[in-house]
Amino acid sequence: MTFMQSLRTAWERNDSLVCVGLDPEPSKFPAHVRDTPDAIFAFSRAIVDATADLVCAFKPQIAHFAAHGAEASLERLIAHIHGEHPGVPVILDAKRGDIGSTAQHYATEAFDRYGADAVTVNPYLGRDSVQPFLDRADKGVILLCRTSNPGSRDLQELVVSDRDDGDRKLYQHVAEIVARDWNTNGNCALVVGATWPEELADVRRRAGDLPLLVPGIGAQGGDVEAVVKNGRTADGTGLMISSSRAILYASNGEDYADAARNAASALREEVNRCRRPLGA
Amino acid sequence: MTFMQSLRTAWERNDSLVCVGLDPEPSKFPAHVRDTPDAIFAFSRAIVDATADLVCAFKPQIAHFAAHGAEASLERLIAHIHGEHPGVPVILDAKRGDIGSTAQHYATEAFDRYGADAVTVNPYLGRDSVQPFLDRADKGVILLCRTSNPGSRDLQELVVSDRDDGDRKLYQHVAEIVARDWNTNGNCALVVGATWPEELADVRRRAGDLPLLVPGIGAQGGDVEAVVKNGRTADGTGLMISSSRAILYASNGEDYADAARNAASALREEVNRCRRPLGA
Repeated sequence: MTFMQSLRTAWERNDSLVCVGLDPEPSKFPAHVRDTPDAIFAFSRAIVDATADLVCAFKPQIAHFAAHGAEASLERLIAHIHGEHPGVPVILDAKRGDIGSTAQHYATEAFDRYGADAVTVNPYLGRDSVQPFLDRADKGVILLCRTSNPGSRDLQELVVSDRDDGDRKLYQHVAEIVARDWNTNGNCALVVGATWPEELADVRRRAGDLPLLVPGIGAQGGDVEAVVKNGRTADGTGLMISSSRAILYASNGEDYADAARNAASALREEVNRCRRPLGA
Repeated sequence: MTFMQSLRTAWERNDSLVCVGLDPEPSKFPAHVRDTPDAIFAFSRAIVDATADLVCAFKPQIAHFAAHGAEASLERLIAHIHGEHPGVPVILDAKRGDIGSTAQHYATEAFDRYGADAVTVNPYLGRDSVQPFLDRADKGVILLCRTSNPGSRDLQELVVSDRDDGDRKLYQHVAEIVARDWNTNGNCALVVGATWPEELADVRRRAGDLPLLVPGIGAQGGDVEAVVKNGRTADGTGLMISSSRAILYASNGEDYADAARNAASALREEVNRCRRPLGA
């Protein structure tokens, strides 16, 4: 199955637009987990097993593994998801971006070494830097468009002029060129932060039915109802609403996996209430 | 020593603006090296030891290690450079970029895990995404400005409008905000491709004396004389002219390290002829 097929399947089968972000921070683990061998894997696996039927995707963040030299734990984790929870796609959140042969090495890292189904990519270096990812038609390529942080204004909100297409902001330009020019294999998606609900509606208009990966609800202040209302497609899907800390660290006691399940379930219900108005 | 201090020291002591890019590709190694244990480390170390007195910096490209699961080789290589060739700074070419706590993890990866003296960073996510790197005042933060690939036109050449500063291209805006606003700790540098000599002169005007990391000579077509003429500072330094393949794979025989030394030496001489006009 391609990434897009497994995403659609997971949206339907799990009735969920929720993506659980796997950002393991050993200092936040429950004490009894922190002292186990390969605690990063053990913690992440417990979260995965507790939530796999509630999500449309898992999104491990590679820096959280790399900072601890835990690449082997990331390999094991993704293999575990594919083995135990087939059909739930894995998005490697790596925000890679480089040129030519180096981009090819990053595609190899994400898709062949780790076996991810999709990867986040930074568009600043342009189309040819993304091509080695785009060429993997079975894999998803999720381009940064409008990120959730305040500093995203510094470049992404700049007004750009284009002889052919008039003025627009840089993130709007990215949304349009990805949807119009880069998506020839039908494997592109975009990152738009939940902290910018109006921009989310704008990107949805420009990008057609491209899936949107939406971080920034919860701790960063994004509002679930505004995200769903502004970001969903006509069929009520089109979103991967990512939550990490609020799910992973819902409890720091022995019940952390149950607490994570409850938090993921509550978010799924909240999202689903918004996409199915009362009475519908 | 800070990155900027060791860069200045290496410029002077080795009389060199040449940076050797360490992009190990096992398929290009000489046959007798390919079959040794940890060939990636053995090959890279031989290049380092053959060229360390001819360079101003080494620049390992992390994707070339990560695609092969060779993070441990990269750790060993950087430790070897620091141990055997003290004073030659190591730039980790990683082009990272992410928000908040994740950016912090990437800074930990580059500076603490690998012990790099500087790292390349993508500016698309804005100032707050770069702050954890900027805060490490002893380390270099080398921001992508105008990359050497043809596709860099897609975003970096867009004309952006700014109420305060008038129109300019995106890469020009990046050069200015980095030099003016982001360089409060004096630890910033910029990446500008040798394939754009006019843009290099333009960035030099906008960015003052910020060091410029310049890839793209040789295989990509950048011209050494134009790079030196347009990119150097008044004192004849200010550049890290990066060459990888032309040095690493100068020979695929048993003499590969000697051939690498000869290639690095020839490039250093070519650069030095250009920065010291005949008769000067």
